[in-house]
Amino acid sequence: MKIKKTCFAIGILIALFSSKSAWAQHKNLMVRIAKIEVDSAQLESYKAILKTEIETSVRVESGVLSLNAVADKNNPTHITILEVYASVEAYKAHIETPHFKIYKTSTKEMVKALQLIEVDPIMLANKHKNP
Amino acid sequence: MKIKKTCFAIGILIALFSSKSAWAQHKNLMVRIAKIEVDSAQLESYKAILKTEIETSVRVESGVLSLNAVADKNNPTHITILEVYASVEAYKAHIETPHFKIYKTSTKEMVKALQLIEVDPIMLANKHKNP
Repeated sequence: MKIKKTCFAIGILIALFSSKSAWAQHKNLMVRIAKIEVDSAQLESYKAILKTEIETSVRVESGVLSLNAVADKNNPTHITILEVYASVEAYKAHIETPHFKIYKTSTKEMVKALQLIEVDPIMLANKHKNP
Repeated sequence: MKIKKTCFAIGILIALFSSKSAWAQHKNLMVRIAKIEVDSAQLESYKAILKTEIETSVRVESGVLSLNAVADKNNPTHITILEVYASVEAYKAHIETPHFKIYKTSTKEMVKALQLIEVDPIMLANKHKNP
């Protein structure tokens, strides 16, 4: 019984540690909104390449905390990405990675317009556990 | 030694379960961008109320998956919120909560303009563990 309780306590501690927000630790977040207009004829190709780039970046780069990409329902060629990096250095490292360079090169002719808006985070809240 | 191993295994299992992505389970996400222009004289008050509302919503509502609010660096009264709900029903439940109603009522005179843009998620990737 005592062993079970100890196991449970250790489990809870590990759970708390692993689900702890990554944001809280970073005082120097770099946050940005990218607004991208894509050539409608190449939209599906663009989205496929973007998905791969985002998935890889968040998985392999410790400093890429969040990349959330959405398309306007009424204007699907208009894409917005909310980008959260641990620091300016993490962002600089990100744009030097092979996967980012592949994304940039392969989508060059697909992107009609790109606007980058530097922003300050007010509150970044994401669920870290199953609802 | 065996007990320690068992404890460790249980800990890892709980950790994996608790840090598992919430997004993957929801096929019917409702995602939206809110663009809000705030009266500059009331900006700090507005941000304080917004922080509380976001923190509470993501913590207590199972269907509020993510609320990320940012302010333009060059125009701090221009605020963008990327909102991710598990479903339209979760959103409808959200706007009926006491904390949302308090936010809405108390910021009524602070908000100069509100634009709501319905969007489709392309890729929502957030780190769920400490980097």
